[in-house]
Amino acid sequence: MRTLIKNAWILTMNEKMQEYKDGQIVIEDDKILYVGKPKEFDSIDNIVDAKNCLVLPGMVNTHCHVSMLPFRSLQDDCPDRLRRFLFPLENACMNEDLAYYGACYGTGEMLLSGITTFADMYYFMDKVALACEKMGIRAVLGETIIDQPTCDAKNAVEALKIGEKFIEEWKHHPLITPMLAPHATNTNTEEIFRKAMEIVKKHDTLMMTHVAEMDYEMTYFRNKYNMTPIEWLESISCLNQHVLAVHCIHINEADIQLMKKHDVKVSHCPVSNLKAGKGIAPAKDIMENGVAMGFGTDGASSGNTLDLFIQMRMFAGAQKTKYHDRSLFPAKEIVRIATIEGAKALRIDEQIGSLEVGKKADIVLISLESAHMFPVYDPYSILVYSANASDVKDVFVNGKQVVSDRKLKVDLSILREQLQKEMKEFSKKAEELSK
Amino acid sequence: MRTLIKNAWILTMNEKMQEYKDGQIVIEDDKILYVGKPKEFDSIDNIVDAKNCLVLPGMVNTHCHVSMLPFRSLQDDCPDRLRRFLFPLENACMNEDLAYYGACYGTGEMLLSGITTFADMYYFMDKVALACEKMGIRAVLGETIIDQPTCDAKNAVEALKIGEKFIEEWKHHPLITPMLAPHATNTNTEEIFRKAMEIVKKHDTLMMTHVAEMDYEMTYFRNKYNMTPIEWLESISCLNQHVLAVHCIHINEADIQLMKKHDVKVSHCPVSNLKAGKGIAPAKDIMENGVAMGFGTDGASSGNTLDLFIQMRMFAGAQKTKYHDRSLFPAKEIVRIATIEGAKALRIDEQIGSLEVGKKADIVLISLESAHMFPVYDPYSILVYSANASDVKDVFVNGKQVVSDRKLKVDLSILREQLQKEMKEFSKKAEELSK
Ligand SMILES: [Zn+2]
Ligand SMILES: [Zn+2]
Repeated sequence: MRTLIKNAWILTMNEKMQEYKDGQIVIEDDKILYVGKPKEFDSIDNIVDAKNCLVLPGMVNTHCHVSMLPFRSLQDDCPDRLRRFLFPLENACMNEDLAYYGACYGTGEMLLSGITTFADMYYFMDKVALACEKMGIRAVLGETIIDQPTCDAKNAVEALKIGEKFIEEWKHHPLITPMLAPHATNTNTEEIFRKAMEIVKKHDTLMMTHVAEMDYEMTYFRNKYNMTPIEWLESISCLNQHVLAVHCIHINEADIQLMKKHDVKVSHCPVSNLKAGKGIAPAKDIMENGVAMGFGTDGASSGNTLDLFIQMRMFAGAQKTKYHDRSLFPAKEIVRIATIEGAKALRIDEQIGSLEVGKKADIVLISLESAHMFPVYDPYSILVYSANASDVKDVFVNGKQVVSDRKLKVDLSILREQLQKEMKEFSKKAEELSK
Repeated sequence: MRTLIKNAWILTMNEKMQEYKDGQIVIEDDKILYVGKPKEFDSIDNIVDAKNCLVLPGMVNTHCHVSMLPFRSLQDDCPDRLRRFLFPLENACMNEDLAYYGACYGTGEMLLSGITTFADMYYFMDKVALACEKMGIRAVLGETIIDQPTCDAKNAVEALKIGEKFIEEWKHHPLITPMLAPHATNTNTEEIFRKAMEIVKKHDTLMMTHVAEMDYEMTYFRNKYNMTPIEWLESISCLNQHVLAVHCIHINEADIQLMKKHDVKVSHCPVSNLKAGKGIAPAKDIMENGVAMGFGTDGASSGNTLDLFIQMRMFAGAQKTKYHDRSLFPAKEIVRIATIEGAKALRIDEQIGSLEVGKKADIVLISLESAHMFPVYDPYSILVYSANASDVKDVFVNGKQVVSDRKLKVDLSILREQLQKEMKEFSKKAEELSK
């Protein structure tokens, strides 16, 4: 099966950052067969016209809790929201069906916004994986390990078992990379972290965990160990190339040196962090030290919309302001973070993250027809400072077209209906708690 | 002529912040005749179904340079952009036709994003006013006064003359409120400021000026007068209820007290300020002191997109982060700033800014059908943290429908074609300067 994408303004995001103003891409099955100037090809089954579109690699969301979709817009500005609303609702109402339909809807939203790969930490991950398979999105998925009873495990030891079983069952799937996700540095014991790391090493996969996010997390480690969370992870032999450290808001220069030394990856979630007033991660220092960093949307409960356009735009604003320098992180670098750098953070940059022959065909077409998409002196500038999720027109994952002319293959209104039905108990409880 | 908007989830933004979950609005000619629960009305000429939409007052953009549309995406991350690109291009290529077609396109973009009123500082304001008349948008417009030769005046004295003539010619227009716009505190002499203030007082209108925006502006006033720009304006009797001070990034507590005392208005442009890395205005302190403040997009050269959704979202993130407090500026307050508070800043809150009987019928319908607009526990939260410009479905200004089902009355592609044609010289010069 061969698909031709023609009349394309291609941003390859390869190492040379090559561009083709009037280029073409040929997809064969799940892979990219050709990227470059127009050229004749035999046996094309399907032609997509990319006229007046920018064409780039599918965007990579390095951190999400996609099944938390039902929480969006609930008590956004409430100070103690996590303990007053999120934990109680999760414990009372989250189940495998809600996790599944939340994930179907949320992955649909991601695809519509040009995200073709995401990394997720949550419960009922086998259901989330089934949702990804149904929707046709690439995913790196890890069961949450946390030292408290949850909606799918009575304690961390049981969660570890569920998590390893999930890895074994899904490790050969073409779209799914299973991993483990210990919740945060301060919500698991040393023993659990060590066991998690053993499993992760055995299966050569990622360990995603929230690090240096909360004020009380920092205080806890300072008081108990006189260490930072990063130093603590190193002290228990859990800081290495398998670690995907999420947030890293409150890290210092020494932490960054440790992360560099141990080849740790970072997921930076600017929209979620800014909305919660937590602070601005030192992204300039992270990247200048060569530490791989991608963007994360976080869950819809925290970052609200599941797209990287708003991450790019708010990242630019926050970093330029933090360092008082308008030339810091030019648009081109920011689009790199949303694509190839994100793939590096997830350790799958040999498969995805740029448009190159032999890589998986994860491709996004972004229309320039909206009012705010003109004029275009610089395609990266228009992506970072103008585009929004609604400008995404067509999306391919693993060679298959999953969004056509702004519509999902699976009707969004049906996904919404199913989720809404499943949310009945949840919504009632949410209302009660809000009183 | 009577229009009925039915099945509406209405956010009135009136003083009591009344809402109607299944409400209706009746427009008679240019005014709102009824807002409330469904009720029978005679002689309805036109019915608009607002099912699955939020209905709110048209948004108010308190600062723009709309004719600068041709600059969008040009050298966004360049350090000395103003002097290397903006001034030279403006002097060489800006003329009345480009100002006109830029304004047609830019006001079209604003209408499509739910902005029904904007305040503008630029050149060739009679052309901008004609564009507003054509597009059907409400505007507060002021000729730029600056102590240097410009594209439409050889010096500030001539600009003052052009500016006053413009006020006299347009002061009785139903959509246009003419004002004066001395460019900035540090780009005009004391004498010019005093003369501008005289004219403004005589016509009882606004004086819009950039204040406390630039580092070098702050240094200039400290070195020359040992004052802040706000203190300097007071010292020359130019700080009063007519002043709309744009940006106010670098103001201190004493400045805010002066602004309160003299009933000065503020236009805050978060997206423009963040992108340029200039800093974050102390909005909490401004508003806690009762100083009227609205949002501004700034020109497309600075803030890139002409919509208030991105202003609301980045404002929330920046302020909550600046003050390290997630509960600061809850979504409801932010939607107020985008509507009724903006109207107060422009001194036209008796006419617009909320949905109330007798006010002008400036009304926006925002669709909830996009993936990111579900679920809705809190309509203000979904507007601030989820919505984007592409969710705006229908727009009324002064009782006339100017956007229907996401389409402008005047075809956007024609506006783009006309502007592109007019930009020929401009684009060539822009390319040359970029080399
Ligand atoms: Zn998270
Ligand atoms: Zn301005």
